[in-house]
Amino acid sequence: MREIKFSSGIHVFGNTSDRFVKDGYKEDKSLKEMIGLAGQVPDLEGIELVEGWHVSTDNLKEVSGWVNEAGLVVTVVHPDLWTTKKWASGALAASDKKTREQATGVVKNAMDMSEQLGANLVDVWFGQDGWEYAFTQDYMKAWDLGAEALAMVCDHNPNVRVGIEYKIKEPRVHMHFGTLGKVMLLVNEVNRPNLGIIIDFGHAFFGYENAAQAIAICKRAGNKLFHTHFNDNYRMWDDDMIPSSVNIIDYIELLYWLELTGYDGWYSLDIFPYREDGVRAANESIRWLKSLRTLIAKIGMEKIQRTIKQEDAIEALALIREAMLGG
Amino acid sequence: MREIKFSSGIHVFGNTSDRFVKDGYKEDKSLKEMIGLAGQVPDLEGIELVEGWHVSTDNLKEVSGWVNEAGLVVTVVHPDLWTTKKWASGALAASDKKTREQATGVVKNAMDMSEQLGANLVDVWFGQDGWEYAFTQDYMKAWDLGAEALAMVCDHNPNVRVGIEYKIKEPRVHMHFGTLGKVMLLVNEVNRPNLGIIIDFGHAFFGYENAAQAIAICKRAGNKLFHTHFNDNYRMWDDDMIPSSVNIIDYIELLYWLELTGYDGWYSLDIFPYREDGVRAANESIRWLKSLRTLIAKIGMEKIQRTIKQEDAIEALALIREAMLGG
Amino acid sequence: MREIKFSSGIHVFGNTSDRFVKDGYKEDKSLKEMIGLAGQVPDLEGIELVEGWHVSTDNLKEVSGWVNEAGLVVTVVHPDLWTTKKWASGALAASDKKTREQATGVVKNAMDMSEQLGANLVDVWFGQDGWEYAFTQDYMKAWDLGAEALAMVCDHNPNVRVGIEYKIKEPRVHMHFGTLGKVMLLVNEVNRPNLGIIIDFGHAFFGYENAAQAIAICKRAGNKLFHTHFNDNYRMWDDDMIPSSVNIIDYIELLYWLELTGYDGWYSLDIFPYREDGVRAANESIRWLKSLRTLIAKIGMEKIQRTIKQEDAIEALALIREAMLGG
Amino acid sequence: MREIKFSSGIHVFGNTSDRFVKDGYKEDKSLKEMIGLAGQVPDLEGIELVEGWHVSTDNLKEVSGWVNEAGLVVTVVHPDLWTTKKWASGALAASDKKTREQATGVVKNAMDMSEQLGANLVDVWFGQDGWEYAFTQDYMKAWDLGAEALAMVCDHNPNVRVGIEYKIKEPRVHMHFGTLGKVMLLVNEVNRPNLGIIIDFGHAFFGYENAAQAIAICKRAGNKLFHTHFNDNYRMWDDDMIPSSVNIIDYIELLYWLELTGYDGWYSLDIFPYREDGVRAANESIRWLKSLRTLIAKIGMEKIQRTIKQEDAIEALALIREAMLGG
Repeated sequence: MREIKFSSGIHVFGNTSDRFVKDGYKEDKSLKEMIGLAGQVPDLEGIELVEGWHVSTDNLKEVSGWVNEAGLVVTVVHPDLWTTKKWASGALAASDKKTREQATGVVKNAMDMSEQLGANLVDVWFGQDGWEYAFTQDYMKAWDLGAEALAMVCDHNPNVRVGIEYKIKEPRVHMHFGTLGKVMLLVNEVNRPNLGIIIDFGHAFFGYENAAQAIAICKRAGNKLFHTHFNDNYRMWDDDMIPSSVNIIDYIELLYWLELTGYDGWYSLDIFPYREDGVRAANESIRWLKSLRTLIAKIGMEKIQRTIKQEDAIEALALIREAMLGG
Repeated sequence: MREIKFSSGIHVFGNTSDRFVKDGYKEDKSLKEMIGLAGQVPDLEGIELVEGWHVSTDNLKEVSGWVNEAGLVVTVVHPDLWTTKKWASGALAASDKKTREQATGVVKNAMDMSEQLGANLVDVWFGQDGWEYAFTQDYMKAWDLGAEALAMVCDHNPNVRVGIEYKIKEPRVHMHFGTLGKVMLLVNEVNRPNLGIIIDFGHAFFGYENAAQAIAICKRAGNKLFHTHFNDNYRMWDDDMIPSSVNIIDYIELLYWLELTGYDGWYSLDIFPYREDGVRAANESIRWLKSLRTLIAKIGMEKIQRTIKQEDAIEALALIREAMLGG
Repeated sequence: MREIKFSSGIHVFGNTSDRFVKDGYKEDKSLKEMIGLAGQVPDLEGIELVEGWHVSTDNLKEVSGWVNEAGLVVTVVHPDLWTTKKWASGALAASDKKTREQATGVVKNAMDMSEQLGANLVDVWFGQDGWEYAFTQDYMKAWDLGAEALAMVCDHNPNVRVGIEYKIKEPRVHMHFGTLGKVMLLVNEVNRPNLGIIIDFGHAFFGYENAAQAIAICKRAGNKLFHTHFNDNYRMWDDDMIPSSVNIIDYIELLYWLELTGYDGWYSLDIFPYREDGVRAANESIRWLKSLRTLIAKIGMEKIQRTIKQEDAIEALALIREAMLGG
Repeated sequence: MREIKFSSGIHVFGNTSDRFVKDGYKEDKSLKEMIGLAGQVPDLEGIELVEGWHVSTDNLKEVSGWVNEAGLVVTVVHPDLWTTKKWASGALAASDKKTREQATGVVKNAMDMSEQLGANLVDVWFGQDGWEYAFTQDYMKAWDLGAEALAMVCDHNPNVRVGIEYKIKEPRVHMHFGTLGKVMLLVNEVNRPNLGIIIDFGHAFFGYENAAQAIAICKRAGNKLFHTHFNDNYRMWDDDMIPSSVNIIDYIELLYWLELTGYDGWYSLDIFPYREDGVRAANESIRWLKSLRTLIAKIGMEKIQRTIKQEDAIEALALIREAMLGG
């Protein structure tokens, strides 16, 4: 088994709100405090930051210092295309040209900051590019515009990788680019070497995708899996719970496929611990993932591969059961 | 067809946020402004207010004046059991005794204000009484506590009706009292004449309930439907869209059942027009509901009843189709 | 931990078909063969039979002999209210009086046979009592009729327990009595000591119920859990897979609640191994359930109870993780 | 509005069974009878047949005669890759080479018959190419094999179009090629002019796809929508109900998009009228679709297009409401 590295969205260590409890279930914390807390989590080596919200040209050096001090590195910069009302009607695929220009500007800026911070990766999530009601969207045009914008930002800085994160819904009721199949179509159409995909495993689960298959499809497309987000849910909504707190078997299988396909990116947490302590939640998340990987190692990659080839459900279940629970 | 009266949650006319766009998709508005906007919606006669958030002992008179001025009445007061972090681990059914006492206090206060405002109805939504993770709840005890708290508040002021609103999830991943069946069990157990149910039709839809059947069950239990919330969704989540913007047939059927069972409460909107103008959204909601009722009247209640008795899907569909789209 | 006994639906050892592969994925087997196969499964002590389909007054003795010979007992008799076209428009709650009489007759007969076979339990599943289309049902009347029929059959033979199994859909698109809350309302209304509930855990999962809470509600209603069905799914449909092949944590929690509440009925398999060998699938199912119970014993019931009382997600997850995957 | 032509799966006029009522809710009918019944449906001009099940080299002429006699044409031939146990572990993408060869043989045969019948279209549905349990599939290999098989059959007879139908689940719990995005990836990879997509609108709904967007994506890929299947459901399962019996607004939008994108194929019914008369169900289906198209014509394609461009939910809803229900 290869060495892996854990990362986390920095929001895990801050306050988290929902549409009812607008000021959050905890107290607000400064970015510096959040970074400090991230630094306390054993085995956590990287953090994700949001452009604008957390990091900007103005505070780049300062933030970088805090991160270093905490013994961490920045793994991803998220262009902020989904936290302010200016994106209410879309961002990169918005029909309004000025909005699109602003959005591509934001991504380019995030890319440059990502390069300066040594992350060389941005997470483009089309979170506001979608719709609620019938007869409010020219679906073909939105797709054109999304593809055009991606090409533009990819060409801006070929040294920085652009990963598209997908999700079937929320905050929009429907998303233009909501499934693995659709974002892979987009990746193929735009066809830039620095364009790829970020799988959020919780998004896969509640979109009735099999996460392991999603990883396989990215591999097959030529190592197009650029980054991962770990969290869990009850397959109906993006509950953003601690990974494998619900779906253990799915997690074992996807961890196996990450290893098998030679994925060498970060294992990054994107949980929303509304009511849990962020440091403890991140730590418990990492404990689960490490334990499940230890289980895989104990069984052995080759043994698993041979079992898969048998296509025998009982054999497969017995293999997991015995390793996990004894003979 | 009886005369009906439309109401709306006052939040429809304010700012609405989600977990990503924390400061909302619009500008914040004062309560006075929101009430003024509600007053502009044709056919809207009532509004729902949230205790604490909107109305308190201190501003009761003032708010009452604004409502009168706008030509409206207050239809429901919501005890605020779900907008602040103090309820993070539950409210009426919380295991912590002090929290429960605080929660019942809030409901009692809301009941008294509701009486003073002439609404005589509170909406008890166990929104924070639930859980996320396995092995964190004593389900039996939570149910005991919920029942106990309801009995207590019902006895506080028998002149005010207490309606339980239910929903399978959000903000908690799981709710103790999330379905019609469960809240009716609770209503039966607590067994107070002023205890009943509030059906939010969107909640019914995304819990795979048939809203018309839910109305019938409330009728059968002895007129236990105290109030209604109108909104719509794609049956996966509480999208809080304009009623019948997605599920027209369901809406026709439930409007028929409200009429058939002699429901004489308010037809109240609980939509979240994140990206739409509140006044226009409320107006369009009412236009749809009135038009669908006109359709029912055009067909005739008795004709519908006879068709239902036939239990013939084709007859039923043809009846709706011809009335709605022509022969 | 108390001693438990495993049972299985006899169909697990036969042929299983779906709407596409009408003659099934395997070869048909005689009842005698199926019983013989059931007898081969280690730890399996009981089987469930379907009245009419498997057992009738005519072959009762013979079947009983086969069961004995295989070292098994009969645990449940299912009145056949859902395998023939005569129930297409409903059975116990059908609006047609003759159909209802036929249906209650079938249940009474099944009850008598169940007594003679020493099972003293029937499984009443309102599988065909539901609907597809709007405006085809008088929901109030259907409920009346269902309750009336249940009272009638319960009074027929008070020595035999009548358990209601529930499921939100399939074969009907909507079911009259589809959730735990609804069937408990029915149990309370009919109010017979020999009337209770059968939880199929897969049905609970895909109805977005928490199975552990469902068990707790049955306990709170006065030991109303009469029987259990074990299987698993991806929370969208009744996939009838091997228990805990998908949802391990849910299964650990529900096994704990069965133990805690002193459930002393059968642990019975209701899986559909379309493409798997029945004996191996039943065996693997029992291996999982036994292993998970061993895990619970290893942690200790009291330790779990104390952890639950803390209402601390991280503690709860760490407890499971360490026991299952090591420190 | 262009002239459109209605077709139907011939199964609509026969017996339909499920996994519980194995011999179906009606009486079996001969193919000749079914074709005769299809001929009775006003406006129905075409039928779909299943290779092997309905039509083979042996009865080709005879069947063709019956179809002519009924005043119909054959629109699609379905290679039977999903009705017999031999496909239990997959067909075109099965890991077993002989199974794959048999499966491609079946498709080629169906293509040839389709040409002889003048349909020139086959419906390849990977219904059995999927899995149930974790660790039973090499997802990459299955994709390779599926693509390889498609290339092979497309090259067999370039005069016949091969349409891939997709669905997230059933009969397998998971499908390799289950969403629009995934099958479009496959279409792009195989890259044959005679390879395209068949959208079953019910499949789109219960996979949380927007059918109108699915049509738009096919158009954008270069007229890749080869055929359509009309039916409806409650967005949780493939209920195969009468189209627009549940989701009217979705149906109006998708009919608009079919018209807008110049789709010139068949409007074909794929409903399962388990408990309804097939002729009446098909007729009612067509009445709804025609009426909704008349509604679109009444509003006007250009008016709709202008409204869409406004991206204003209230305008869009008012447009539909006024046309459908009056001002």
